[in-house]
Amino acid sequence: MIESSFQDDMYDAEGDESVNRLQDRLVELTGKEAAMWALSGTMGNQICLRTHLTQPPHSVLLDHRAHVHCWESGALPVMSQASVTQVHPKNGIHLTVEDVKKHIIADGNIHFPPTRVVSLENSLSGTILPLKAAQEISEFVRNYPVEEGRPPIAMHLDGARLFDAITAEGVDLKEYCACFDTVSICLAKGLGAPMGSVIVGSKKFINRAKYFRKMFGGGTRQPGMMAAAALSALEYTMPLLPQVHSLTRSTANSLRDAGYTISLPVQTNMIVLDLENDGIPPAAFVEYGKRAGVTLFPTGRLVFHHQISPEAAARLVSALTRLMEDKNAGKALENHKVTGGYV
Amino acid sequence: MIESSFQDDMYDAEGDESVNRLQDRLVELTGKEAAMWALSGTMGNQICLRTHLTQPPHSVLLDHRAHVHCWESGALPVMSQASVTQVHPKNGIHLTVEDVKKHIIADGNIHFPPTRVVSLENSLSGTILPLKAAQEISEFVRNYPVEEGRPPIAMHLDGARLFDAITAEGVDLKEYCACFDTVSICLAKGLGAPMGSVIVGSKKFINRAKYFRKMFGGGTRQPGMMAAAALSALEYTMPLLPQVHSLTRSTANSLRDAGYTISLPVQTNMIVLDLENDGIPPAAFVEYGKRAGVTLFPTGRLVFHHQISPEAAARLVSALTRLMEDKNAGKALENHKVTGGYV
Amino acid sequence: MIESSFQDDMYDAEGDESVNRLQDRLVELTGKEAAMWALSGTMGNQICLRTHLTQPPHSVLLDHRAHVHCWESGALPVMSQASVTQVHPKNGIHLTVEDVKKHIIADGNIHFPPTRVVSLENSLSGTILPLKAAQEISEFVRNYPVEEGRPPIAMHLDGARLFDAITAEGVDLKEYCACFDTVSICLAKGLGAPMGSVIVGSKKFINRAKYFRKMFGGGTRQPGMMAAAALSALEYTMPLLPQVHSLTRSTANSLRDAGYTISLPVQTNMIVLDLENDGIPPAAFVEYGKRAGVTLFPTGRLVFHHQISPEAAARLVSALTRLMEDKNAGKALENHKVTGGYV
Amino acid sequence: MIESSFQDDMYDAEGDESVNRLQDRLVELTGKEAAMWALSGTMGNQICLRTHLTQPPHSVLLDHRAHVHCWESGALPVMSQASVTQVHPKNGIHLTVEDVKKHIIADGNIHFPPTRVVSLENSLSGTILPLKAAQEISEFVRNYPVEEGRPPIAMHLDGARLFDAITAEGVDLKEYCACFDTVSICLAKGLGAPMGSVIVGSKKFINRAKYFRKMFGGGTRQPGMMAAAALSALEYTMPLLPQVHSLTRSTANSLRDAGYTISLPVQTNMIVLDLENDGIPPAAFVEYGKRAGVTLFPTGRLVFHHQISPEAAARLVSALTRLMEDKNAGKALENHKVTGGYV
Repeated sequence: MIESSFQDDMYDAEGDESVNRLQDRLVELTGKEAAMWALSGTMGNQICLRTHLTQPPHSVLLDHRAHVHCWESGALPVMSQASVTQVHPKNGIHLTVEDVKKHIIADGNIHFPPTRVVSLENSLSGTILPLKAAQEISEFVRNYPVEEGRPPIAMHLDGARLFDAITAEGVDLKEYCACFDTVSICLAKGLGAPMGSVIVGSKKFINRAKYFRKMFGGGTRQPGMMAAAALSALEYTMPLLPQVHSLTRSTANSLRDAGYTISLPVQTNMIVLDLENDGIPPAAFVEYGKRAGVTLFPTGRLVFHHQISPEAAARLVSALTRLMEDKNAGKALENHKVTGGYV
Repeated sequence: MIESSFQDDMYDAEGDESVNRLQDRLVELTGKEAAMWALSGTMGNQICLRTHLTQPPHSVLLDHRAHVHCWESGALPVMSQASVTQVHPKNGIHLTVEDVKKHIIADGNIHFPPTRVVSLENSLSGTILPLKAAQEISEFVRNYPVEEGRPPIAMHLDGARLFDAITAEGVDLKEYCACFDTVSICLAKGLGAPMGSVIVGSKKFINRAKYFRKMFGGGTRQPGMMAAAALSALEYTMPLLPQVHSLTRSTANSLRDAGYTISLPVQTNMIVLDLENDGIPPAAFVEYGKRAGVTLFPTGRLVFHHQISPEAAARLVSALTRLMEDKNAGKALENHKVTGGYV
Repeated sequence: MIESSFQDDMYDAEGDESVNRLQDRLVELTGKEAAMWALSGTMGNQICLRTHLTQPPHSVLLDHRAHVHCWESGALPVMSQASVTQVHPKNGIHLTVEDVKKHIIADGNIHFPPTRVVSLENSLSGTILPLKAAQEISEFVRNYPVEEGRPPIAMHLDGARLFDAITAEGVDLKEYCACFDTVSICLAKGLGAPMGSVIVGSKKFINRAKYFRKMFGGGTRQPGMMAAAALSALEYTMPLLPQVHSLTRSTANSLRDAGYTISLPVQTNMIVLDLENDGIPPAAFVEYGKRAGVTLFPTGRLVFHHQISPEAAARLVSALTRLMEDKNAGKALENHKVTGGYV
Repeated sequence: MIESSFQDDMYDAEGDESVNRLQDRLVELTGKEAAMWALSGTMGNQICLRTHLTQPPHSVLLDHRAHVHCWESGALPVMSQASVTQVHPKNGIHLTVEDVKKHIIADGNIHFPPTRVVSLENSLSGTILPLKAAQEISEFVRNYPVEEGRPPIAMHLDGARLFDAITAEGVDLKEYCACFDTVSICLAKGLGAPMGSVIVGSKKFINRAKYFRKMFGGGTRQPGMMAAAALSALEYTMPLLPQVHSLTRSTANSLRDAGYTISLPVQTNMIVLDLENDGIPPAAFVEYGKRAGVTLFPTGRLVFHHQISPEAAARLVSALTRLMEDKNAGKALENHKVTGGYV
């Protein structure tokens, strides 16, 4: 960061050097033509959707749990005037081309807002959208008939945690990104940057996206230091992902042994416990974690990153094992409502 | 219509006499404080939602098949900047309080657009939302905690075909409407008016709704003739609904006997055939109807009204029976794609 | 109306016959490719603007008094997410190409919402936008450079009272309409239809506009009677416009003689009095009119139509002459605030 | 920055320590209840307006040159569905209560979007909105009648350069801010922070504003370093403003002596030259500056800050003096169109 540049990213025709270096690195990794720095994952996603969508009526087809629909403060209808088609994956884990075929809305009937973007997410709650599924969806969507003069339906990927998913599935990042017109990659979650996301796409798309970054208030003057920190984080953290996933898996096994139900396959860096099914009150869950020095979401979603040590994971397992034992022994557990920023 | 009034419904402080007469009649029937003429069912619904919703982020909770979400040309996000929560009824037919409890979004977390309106529909694809279900949902929703200073979550009913549903269930209209803050009633569908809908609610609500009628382009100068026609249609058609439902039921029985699968309970004036399951190509379905002088939707949805005679219904049954026989006999059926205004 | 058709204008592929007849007549008169029935002037204008505008950021350049900006309940930003550039005509009466040149916003700078539509109005407060001015603006706007791949900036005309303006200026309607991509013509104001407007433009444009009519709630089932009434009104009223304008002019002269200041040239069917300048309280103005059996806007805007007789005009002149005399004699005049639908 | 905190500003209930320190400092300076970090001036302003505005139709009254309308990429209608009333100050410099009285739009008529926010700007193009004018406007606006149950019309200040204006006018910041419900202060312009703005207002307002920061993509995880830099910049730069203004004034005098026309009073840190009036081609203006090592906007707007030395200013004066001499001598000057990020 100390060596980063301090150019004005809004007014300098060439942009800021550190920002450019980060953007160039993402272009190189993803195989797309161009990249643009955004200040958060939400900003990256909403800019991509807003740039793809032109004139309503229009719909975005997505998984019913999609971050862009559920977690971004209702931004999509505000910014883009878009309807959504919320699809429940038939296999219970990820969307497939069959799901998309069944729910896509065709152009040409004045009653219905036609699908203009299919927005996927990888990973989603820690599970992988396999390359093959992405490829099949992409092929179907890109060949779907549209009204004369319109561009094909766009493919967007919320790849907030894409590096985790690619690494865990063992597939090529460029090949994966080829299924999509645009990808939004968050550098501030698992990768550990203090802030920021990068979106990638065609040059034409990125040029247009800059209007929306400005409109959303994401035009900043000297973001060079933040971009430099993000690039460092990316290079440093990427190689550590396999051991993060390995620690996640072994922790999941221990928790399963302790009697916990795990809702979704453990494929990357998350474990989603089904506390309700197991009769564990959220408040007790948070409290037992706290006593062991671990901050827990009351929802039962456990997220791992490269700064979590095997010792901390062991401490967590031991705390949660005790919780399950106490519950089984009929001990009274804290049961109040949990409030605050978490869900 | 010849005796209707011709006052200016926008500029006259008192409004137009014929329009007022229609509005007063709906107030009387529904037990609400006030009513407002709108030009279509879509306009009535979207005005109600837009009037209930104030500042985003906000969500509308609804059945995943709701007309206000699926059939109104994507108006909701455009007009109201609203997200939707698309719920699949657990019982496969209509929403219950359990469905609502599971999907309602609480106020107070910046990530989530809180539920501000629960929008129900009766009838929906011809099935009834029973009074008891409406009452239980209403009680739960109206008592749901909201942030200090906010009004309770609103209850809206898309009652485009409410008279059918009330008559068929045999419940009291005023009692039913008491579950809702606003109801939109279409006079141009089963009731047979040339155009128009009426919305009912509190006086304060209706006063505010007038801004949106104007904004949507629904402010008309001399709508008196249309309102007079709508009032006539209402009075004339209401008593005929039981025999429409009876003809619908007997037709459904005949079609079932002929081998057709019916997707949903036949409770009012609609029969929803499952053509895909029965292997009937939509184009053949339309064609066999046409030869018998009946215009059919390629979707397999049959809608009855008071001008359909038992003879026409018999002609339809006989045409569709022949279709099923031809299909079973392995005869080649028309199989091209059906386009146009229908779905 | 009794002979009008009753087809379903939404579901019949061919539309309704009476509606088609009205639309065809407007196509014939204006020389455009296609026409579409809308339910009000506001609906016609807002549909046109919404259809022209695709993706924000975008601006509409207009006269600061434009109906589409000032009088349509703030619809433009809601429906179209559009900014406006409010221009004060340098000549105090109507926009010229110099005004447009000075205020048009170029494409290509992320800070500014580029002009995508120039929306003019003829007549505006009864004054004419001359053909020559429209032609010069049109030529400039259509040749204005835009980003590669974008259509030229669109020209829209709010022609709510276009027949008045054309007749009074003595120019050709087709030649006038040739300056614009779309024109919205109101049949319910001076022309006297009970409701409705028609928009005209290219076939492609009108096909797209149908989505927005549906979205705005303007899709009606059997509007045939209203369309038939509008067509009659149009044919009946058009030839009467010259005598309406003549009565307006002679009334203006009498009022000027009585000491009234007239704000704008009296060119068609309106007289705009400057009550504030003349020290006439709006409440007294309304009251003196009422006593003479004439309903007046408190703003001092007098609007004439073909059903106003020379006798009524004489009664008005005599009432307003008395008002001016009373004022000059220092008589106490009603001075309370006027409220209600008028301005 | 090295000593800044690294807490998660979204998920930690208490927020980040460095961000809190900056916010607390602004609370202390402005006398408002609460403050919130935003990532840019555009974000701060648009969040404030979006938070004040609830349900359309609604208008924002502002100076026709206002940044929130002209320079923020058309965000206002997109985010807030708001109309604007663009007022030309009668005195040619800043709005007064007379301007506001003339253009404010009252509540209660369905045709008009009532004024819900009056948004002022200080400084605007370097000129001051005097405390007295702000106080008179504020008193009028806050007492303006609104419909029963509605809050008073809100007063917002775009105070991107408020410290300059306050210092130059020699008035009290708290007293100035008391005229407004909310103030947005940019730390990244004259004050020199790498990024960021802070908005101030009531606690209730700021709590609500957090939803919109999230929705706009302004929720960042570890913004502590940026906040620490902004706080340092604020403390360091504030005392230097008087000498910046003094250098601006003396430079303006020299340029006036050299024959330049200055469009607006030079009251803070800007000089607005009227190049068009003086017959200076923008391209030549940029080029002469460049040769003297000074980057110039082709518009003729000169902006000073604390890192500009008297030597640099002298170099600029000498370059521009030569330009004027060359022009007067009839020398051919560069005359091509200037493009890019500037205007």
